[in-house]
Amino acid sequence: MVGGGQLARMTHEAGIPLGIRFRLLSDTPQDSAAQVVNDVVLGDYRDLETLRAFSRGCDVITFDHEHVPVEHLRALEADGVAVRPGPDALVHAQDKGVMRERLTALGIPCPRHRVVADPADVRAFAEDDPGAGGFPVVLKTVRGGYDGKGVWVVSSEAEAAEPFRAGVPVLAEEKVAFTRELAANVVRSPHGQAVAYPVVESVQVSGVCDTVIAPAPGLSPEAAAHAQHLALTVAHELGVVGHLAVELFETEDGRVLVNELAMRPHNSGHWTQDGAVTSQFANHLRAVLDLPLGDPRPRAPWTVMANVLGGDYPDMYQGYLHCLARDPGLRIHMYGKDVKPGRKVGHVNTYGTDLADVRERARHAADYLRGTITE
Amino acid sequence: MVGGGQLARMTHEAGIPLGIRFRLLSDTPQDSAAQVVNDVVLGDYRDLETLRAFSRGCDVITFDHEHVPVEHLRALEADGVAVRPGPDALVHAQDKGVMRERLTALGIPCPRHRVVADPADVRAFAEDDPGAGGFPVVLKTVRGGYDGKGVWVVSSEAEAAEPFRAGVPVLAEEKVAFTRELAANVVRSPHGQAVAYPVVESVQVSGVCDTVIAPAPGLSPEAAAHAQHLALTVAHELGVVGHLAVELFETEDGRVLVNELAMRPHNSGHWTQDGAVTSQFANHLRAVLDLPLGDPRPRAPWTVMANVLGGDYPDMYQGYLHCLARDPGLRIHMYGKDVKPGRKVGHVNTYGTDLADVRERARHAADYLRGTITE
Repeated sequence: MVGGGQLARMTHEAGIPLGIRFRLLSDTPQDSAAQVVNDVVLGDYRDLETLRAFSRGCDVITFDHEHVPVEHLRALEADGVAVRPGPDALVHAQDKGVMRERLTALGIPCPRHRVVADPADVRAFAEDDPGAGGFPVVLKTVRGGYDGKGVWVVSSEAEAAEPFRAGVPVLAEEKVAFTRELAANVVRSPHGQAVAYPVVESVQVSGVCDTVIAPAPGLSPEAAAHAQHLALTVAHELGVVGHLAVELFETEDGRVLVNELAMRPHNSGHWTQDGAVTSQFANHLRAVLDLPLGDPRPRAPWTVMANVLGGDYPDMYQGYLHCLARDPGLRIHMYGKDVKPGRKVGHVNTYGTDLADVRERARHAADYLRGTITE
Repeated sequence: MVGGGQLARMTHEAGIPLGIRFRLLSDTPQDSAAQVVNDVVLGDYRDLETLRAFSRGCDVITFDHEHVPVEHLRALEADGVAVRPGPDALVHAQDKGVMRERLTALGIPCPRHRVVADPADVRAFAEDDPGAGGFPVVLKTVRGGYDGKGVWVVSSEAEAAEPFRAGVPVLAEEKVAFTRELAANVVRSPHGQAVAYPVVESVQVSGVCDTVIAPAPGLSPEAAAHAQHLALTVAHELGVVGHLAVELFETEDGRVLVNELAMRPHNSGHWTQDGAVTSQFANHLRAVLDLPLGDPRPRAPWTVMANVLGGDYPDMYQGYLHCLARDPGLRIHMYGKDVKPGRKVGHVNTYGTDLADVRERARHAADYLRGTITE
């Protein structure tokens, strides 16, 4: 697996019972995954020769993030390396412009969008709005953004200068008046076998995923099946191998629009570690190794995941003790990362039959660990 | 953790989400745990200086097996190393003579037993039997046995020569006419906090654990509570820190007698990985690090564990594919070991509401992986 973050850490964890030998390409020995994996290669994933040396002896390579240049992946494939997901799929998770063009051609509902040239073009895009809209407009660099970075909401031409400064193409999108965000997680193998996890609700705070509720409360079986079908269609049409997260906006009239795609285990699937028969991490490995996929069904009526963000104090140990003692059923997942304010350093999962209780337990633990509550 | 076997492998797996930095002392880099742990020290656990160097910088040391000499553990404690479980407890899992003497003094029911000097003394022990019994008698070397090794069932003085050849003291025990074997697994922390898992039935074949059923079918709540209380008493009285497995004989009149003790995660607790809120591995780590313990309750009405033994063919890959495809809910745990006939190379867990079905699924997978069935 290329990339030493928490996704690789948790993928290795899931690979141990499967008997999978896991090799990691990591920037530093301190990276989250590098702390727990035996076979660690240190190097820069942007360097083709590093990737070539890393891949030698691997049955397949897969990814903790979407940042490996597509041209390197094509070169590896030409060498005979199994790259999963492959570059033809992965480009849709790397470049939001390519993704929007392809999904629209497939008839997959997306927010109104257009690549824009400059701030005046942003105004033209806003004024083109056939509905009641116009400004505000969402601007995104087509590459390199994550967790709210690389995304701006602008209300005028004057505010639209900033996104163009990086020199990366900018995509303009209507600001969707969504009622909530959902995520449809599916996994697909090279054989074409696919499984769909229950559709979840994802609660974002400041552009960062805060809480995930599985399944999404109040979502009708028809709407859930529609969202799963949409994600399976995307996986099939784009030839995705491995885990695919489709982030969705749910609108007031009950439609869903695709927000983002991720082709790797995803924050909206962390609940599966303790809430599903087979976790997204295990199924991602099973898929990229072309093993039969595991049962994606939930194990409890409700599972809630809350991200643990770093707070003002670097030492979380007292909070960790408190949370383990207060709630013996709490499932804690720490990433081995140094605490910095706002940084994702772990998550907690809770499950049970009473959603309000399950949600309160997750919320309390995440807030206590961050230090925003003290009792 | 001292020892590179599958118990260390699965303990590391359980430590990853807890954020625990795991250092391993292993014989070779090919050992089951050494394949998946980052921080591996190669060395001989029988050498005190190796243990001293290994322990430096560890908050606590704990064990994958019971074979580290007690005098070395005392020396480490004198150096200020936290050794958990400590030598005063661990000696009861190392030496069956010491264990029997102590449990009997505590009033814990054990089979009739006595350390015997020679084959004639074995005959004297048999003839001393106050009941209907006499021969056969069970003979055990007090140290070094496991999985049926170091245990003999003899029917005459003439058959009793073999066990004395190793020069290790020999314990004679009545051959208990048990109806089945049970195991009571508990975990205790230095604070004295303790949790008890549901009592399980352990089905042995040729002295090796074959299948574990959780909870033990048909065991009355009173009998289960009695066995749990017995195990908690042993943990408390012996000062055990970490996981304690108490293997029990259930007799026709409903009594339980202690067969063996193990002070580490144990085969009879493997079902907890997929069948309990907190696995024995996670709770062992939580205990030895003096963290609050996790909920030991079951997640499903029935969980069954079946050991996967090596068969005649070294390549299990086709069987592995078949089992994953046949049963998407199968929880497989492979140890990364080379296949040798009869060697434990993994286990499977299944869970559900119908015991016959759950048991059949586990049995099928274990038999198919071993190669004793082909469809």
